[in-house]
Amino acid sequence: MMTKLVTAVEDTTKVKTMRALVKEERGFGAVLKEVAVPSPKRGEVLIRVEATSICGTDVHIYEWDAWAASRVNPPYVFGHEFSGEVVELGEGTKRLKLGDRVSAETHIVCHQCKQCLRGQYHICKNTKIIGVDTQGCFAEYVVMPEENLWVNPEDMPAAIASIQEPMGNAVHTVLASDVSAKTVAIVGCGPIGLMAVSVAKAAGAAEVIAIDVNPYRLELAKTMGADVVIDSRHEDVLERVRMMTDGDGIDVVCEMSGHPVAIRQAFEMVTAGGDVNILSLPVKPVEIDLTNHVVFKGVRVQGITGRKMYETWSQVSAFLSSGKVDVKPLITHTLPLERFEEGFELMRQGKCGKVVLQPRGTN
Amino acid sequence: MMTKLVTAVEDTTKVKTMRALVKEERGFGAVLKEVAVPSPKRGEVLIRVEATSICGTDVHIYEWDAWAASRVNPPYVFGHEFSGEVVELGEGTKRLKLGDRVSAETHIVCHQCKQCLRGQYHICKNTKIIGVDTQGCFAEYVVMPEENLWVNPEDMPAAIASIQEPMGNAVHTVLASDVSAKTVAIVGCGPIGLMAVSVAKAAGAAEVIAIDVNPYRLELAKTMGADVVIDSRHEDVLERVRMMTDGDGIDVVCEMSGHPVAIRQAFEMVTAGGDVNILSLPVKPVEIDLTNHVVFKGVRVQGITGRKMYETWSQVSAFLSSGKVDVKPLITHTLPLERFEEGFELMRQGKCGKVVLQPRGTN
Amino acid sequence: MMTKLVTAVEDTTKVKTMRALVKEERGFGAVLKEVAVPSPKRGEVLIRVEATSICGTDVHIYEWDAWAASRVNPPYVFGHEFSGEVVELGEGTKRLKLGDRVSAETHIVCHQCKQCLRGQYHICKNTKIIGVDTQGCFAEYVVMPEENLWVNPEDMPAAIASIQEPMGNAVHTVLASDVSAKTVAIVGCGPIGLMAVSVAKAAGAAEVIAIDVNPYRLELAKTMGADVVIDSRHEDVLERVRMMTDGDGIDVVCEMSGHPVAIRQAFEMVTAGGDVNILSLPVKPVEIDLTNHVVFKGVRVQGITGRKMYETWSQVSAFLSSGKVDVKPLITHTLPLERFEEGFELMRQGKCGKVVLQPRGTN
Amino acid sequence: MMTKLVTAVEDTTKVKTMRALVKEERGFGAVLKEVAVPSPKRGEVLIRVEATSICGTDVHIYEWDAWAASRVNPPYVFGHEFSGEVVELGEGTKRLKLGDRVSAETHIVCHQCKQCLRGQYHICKNTKIIGVDTQGCFAEYVVMPEENLWVNPEDMPAAIASIQEPMGNAVHTVLASDVSAKTVAIVGCGPIGLMAVSVAKAAGAAEVIAIDVNPYRLELAKTMGADVVIDSRHEDVLERVRMMTDGDGIDVVCEMSGHPVAIRQAFEMVTAGGDVNILSLPVKPVEIDLTNHVVFKGVRVQGITGRKMYETWSQVSAFLSSGKVDVKPLITHTLPLERFEEGFELMRQGKCGKVVLQPRGTN
Repeated sequence: MMTKLVTAVEDTTKVKTMRALVKEERGFGAVLKEVAVPSPKRGEVLIRVEATSICGTDVHIYEWDAWAASRVNPPYVFGHEFSGEVVELGEGTKRLKLGDRVSAETHIVCHQCKQCLRGQYHICKNTKIIGVDTQGCFAEYVVMPEENLWVNPEDMPAAIASIQEPMGNAVHTVLASDVSAKTVAIVGCGPIGLMAVSVAKAAGAAEVIAIDVNPYRLELAKTMGADVVIDSRHEDVLERVRMMTDGDGIDVVCEMSGHPVAIRQAFEMVTAGGDVNILSLPVKPVEIDLTNHVVFKGVRVQGITGRKMYETWSQVSAFLSSGKVDVKPLITHTLPLERFEEGFELMRQGKCGKVVLQPRGTN
Repeated sequence: MMTKLVTAVEDTTKVKTMRALVKEERGFGAVLKEVAVPSPKRGEVLIRVEATSICGTDVHIYEWDAWAASRVNPPYVFGHEFSGEVVELGEGTKRLKLGDRVSAETHIVCHQCKQCLRGQYHICKNTKIIGVDTQGCFAEYVVMPEENLWVNPEDMPAAIASIQEPMGNAVHTVLASDVSAKTVAIVGCGPIGLMAVSVAKAAGAAEVIAIDVNPYRLELAKTMGADVVIDSRHEDVLERVRMMTDGDGIDVVCEMSGHPVAIRQAFEMVTAGGDVNILSLPVKPVEIDLTNHVVFKGVRVQGITGRKMYETWSQVSAFLSSGKVDVKPLITHTLPLERFEEGFELMRQGKCGKVVLQPRGTN
Repeated sequence: MMTKLVTAVEDTTKVKTMRALVKEERGFGAVLKEVAVPSPKRGEVLIRVEATSICGTDVHIYEWDAWAASRVNPPYVFGHEFSGEVVELGEGTKRLKLGDRVSAETHIVCHQCKQCLRGQYHICKNTKIIGVDTQGCFAEYVVMPEENLWVNPEDMPAAIASIQEPMGNAVHTVLASDVSAKTVAIVGCGPIGLMAVSVAKAAGAAEVIAIDVNPYRLELAKTMGADVVIDSRHEDVLERVRMMTDGDGIDVVCEMSGHPVAIRQAFEMVTAGGDVNILSLPVKPVEIDLTNHVVFKGVRVQGITGRKMYETWSQVSAFLSSGKVDVKPLITHTLPLERFEEGFELMRQGKCGKVVLQPRGTN
Repeated sequence: MMTKLVTAVEDTTKVKTMRALVKEERGFGAVLKEVAVPSPKRGEVLIRVEATSICGTDVHIYEWDAWAASRVNPPYVFGHEFSGEVVELGEGTKRLKLGDRVSAETHIVCHQCKQCLRGQYHICKNTKIIGVDTQGCFAEYVVMPEENLWVNPEDMPAAIASIQEPMGNAVHTVLASDVSAKTVAIVGCGPIGLMAVSVAKAAGAAEVIAIDVNPYRLELAKTMGADVVIDSRHEDVLERVRMMTDGDGIDVVCEMSGHPVAIRQAFEMVTAGGDVNILSLPVKPVEIDLTNHVVFKGVRVQGITGRKMYETWSQVSAFLSSGKVDVKPLITHTLPLERFEEGFELMRQGKCGKVVLQPRGTN
């Protein structure tokens, strides 16, 4: 694959080139430069990117942390959340047509492993992620397998279409439990946590409690519909939950922080017979008091990754088109691609909801 | 049991008497008269009734149809939906205290049959229903087993507390499926259907379609939150559904009409892989095209009766106290008990939502 | 498609031909003749058929009943249950290699409809069935899409590998409920019903009751592991079930007969809270007493079609290779392809379990 | 409660006394002595104990470990697994009659907490356990609430009837997942693990792998039906599992060891999309690599405690009476009550399956 990557990034002598955000070296940062527009192969399509949004994963790659160093191979174009328009169809494509407005499921799966054969594509053992394992979408154009593309309604704004992928994580996490008429805690209010607040409300949660250490994001949590927000730096989270629930605890806890203290609290606050759905990726093993917090309470824990393909996408789509979930307030910053440094800095400081980049300038 | 019933109804010579609506004879109508206030036995409590609401079942008893003639034994006090205040505790009661505001689960179960042993109390083989198999609540006082009483928040209005029982049917029916981000059709907009509209919206349905033949109730369906209402006398229901869903059909159909034509439509409109939850009680066997409407579509059908004890009650309670479901608009008429004939007439004509009777006059 | 069909059947002038059982005319019967060996297109493979088994559907086509007349287009090769060896790979195939021993999932799905997008391929709205909508496998060779092929262990006998497809129906039907420690009734003991008897036992059913009107098949049901067999012509099925279950009824009823009387009994015998899983395809709408047999009992009904792709296949495979299910006794007849008339006659008279045809003679 | 306990244990001047194994002091051991036969209160019954079995919990009490010191209040009669005959009915009992052969659900629940109201009695927040929080059954007689008694078939041997309670733990753990046609690992082969082996086989597991460090119990695991046994002191468990499953891992892992190393292995060996059901009670918090072993794999973890009341009991009963599970080989020792020291010593050394004590001598 490296050969192809090098070509894509460095060979700008061809006729068609585009601007792309390239992770050029194994170190901090990225470079905006001209690269060749990729060509769709059999079963693939070329998409003109209208909006692309920054994910926490992109920040890891940008900052070049240990995970990034172990996984990605510069130089290449990164980025994986986007929406755009189909402008070229590779050979053998069947479903899409030129002009379709699409978003992408970013997991490219093998269809061969036992998980794929059981229909559990989201945990495919051979998953490739675009913008991590393949050329990404922080660019004017991107190539994707046709099967990974979700067709959007024509009137869906490009920025909203772009953040359907992370919203899919939120939907997958929340709907892993039946939340109707229940109390739901969202532990960790990054952009996905903030969407989870709204999804839980839409899905019938009687009360949604948002917990974080960042006042900016707790404020956003209120906007997204949280009934209660708790700043865990200044409040005793467990005591507050105990009071709110007459000592019973929370029915469904969605762990999205990755922080060991928050995770312990998640397991302490869940009620007997309740659920803990974990989307976060703690960097180290975490100590869990299985006896008291899982076994005696008869708690169910569910690990969540990716989006059910494509059940989650139809849920995201239904929530958005029915107006049950409104993610507009979450898109706090929209910038042209060239101001990417500003966007990454906002993400690093947690002073934003979703940051959307526009490769073709502000339309 | 008849001995006790006769005593309860006719012996008004005791010190304490009360006004009660008595089904006195095997025929149309009922009589308001003075009867003895009942006494709670071991494990029972006496409740002063604050509000009681008329159910379709009560109308069957009032009109004395074939079902009523086969099941109930006049003379006795009928009625089963109510709320009130605990005013006397029988021996051996444990949980309640004087002054508690309560509503009643109307199924008195045996705790002995296989269903009860499996925790499926709502389908207990030996269920007795208050106001059908025992003395009911269209009266100033009613006696109930302590275990059947649900304690309400102090500030819940009595009329709303009274209709929690039928709302429980709506909640049980809707939440038998996961409706989040799905299309839901409510076939039959009697009071329970109308509450189901609101419950489906609260539980995250992307679109709720209400279907009936009664314009008054279709209007109420809009008030309760229906996205689409279809008058099946004037519109081709199946064609409309086909158009709305790009030919795919409805994800979850709640059948609450009991009408054979509507039931057939319910099975036709459900999408492949969808659910049909049936709460209605059609008076005769119904022809169903199993091959095309159930087997080839891989449809799941769920019969619904009563309320899960007491999971459904906690869901009802959570929906009401969180404000996710507002049933106030459904209580279209509140009358003193003595105007019961007016109430029953409204019900017979379908020109009402819920009709609430107040045994102690309009407070 | 007709053009291609005609070509495949009639053009025998090419170099390579094969013997195939051709449904030549719109009427009773079929003809064994030489036809061209088909060529695999992109994504397809050519398989040398080692064993092929007769399904009830094939009998419908053979007899040319109303369903057959409305669905299939002679002349073409029919048959859909088979196993064989991969002998040619079309362009772009990825997973299989020459020499692989395979069986086929017979539903060719669209990957585009809402059901496919939700991962419910078995109820794809645009399903094509091999041997019904495409050229089939009653022949020396057959072409299949690579994605529809399941690789078998090398040591699995060809006849057993062939009947994995109908065994998949049995597994799909039985495992649609959790049958562990429960009573299970198999209503209708055709070959799939007989396999369902064995699957239910393997999956932990405490007691399996097999019901039919055919003594030959009831005898086979005993061999397959039925604890109780009931000949419904000579015994009062419902009374027998009542006695066996202390009046409680059956936990899980698998309806595989398609007969209206048996279907009514299925709904009567199921216990409150039990399941009725329907695989059969009754030829007309059936009257069901929803009120008493579905609603009051809180029964769940599940329509079953096809096999979950490919979860059911891995279950079939696990049951066979672990020895938990032994289908050998069910293969009562193995004939060379040229004795097809004998095979179809056995099926029509119900005097057989599975009839296997060998296109290459008895090995 | 202490007052009553003291009375029960020390007052032997009354007419009727019985032999009982009394935990007399806060320290190692127990004493066999004469104590008063207890009297059933309202809703309770007196049972003549026919067989009683030693649980790991009893060993903790016997050895007086930290948990015992923090929970139980000597002097009192301990023991909680038993079977016997109803010999006296307290006032107000309804279901049982004299002569009934019964076993006991040992969790006495409150029927008031949110978990009880949701029908999740096994995780009742106010559970009392007989022989831990109340007088137990290592005695000739024991008193139990009528609602906690399960009536056994008349022909069930007393020793087998006694071990239904721990078998309920095994059934609850295994059936928390659908194990049909799946691979199941039992991590930890104490008596409950050994029963779990047999339950998993009966419930349709394609392959059951038993893992322990005790050769005696691994031998018993084979007898109970394990397809593969792994001695984790001498074999690389994970490597063995990898080879057996083509690198895919185990579908359902039942953790019954409580050992941190085994727990880590349990989470490593489970396949993506698989289940880990935990019944064990590790003495300290355990480090779990949530990111790699739960989140990325989309694993579900379920804490298990007690038995579903009384769904699990009917499953146990069905497995035993159908002969699907045979626990006889597990009862390795049957001793008269006076040889209790021998019984406890066997348990402490792990040189036994279940040890049954007979308070009335060997019958």
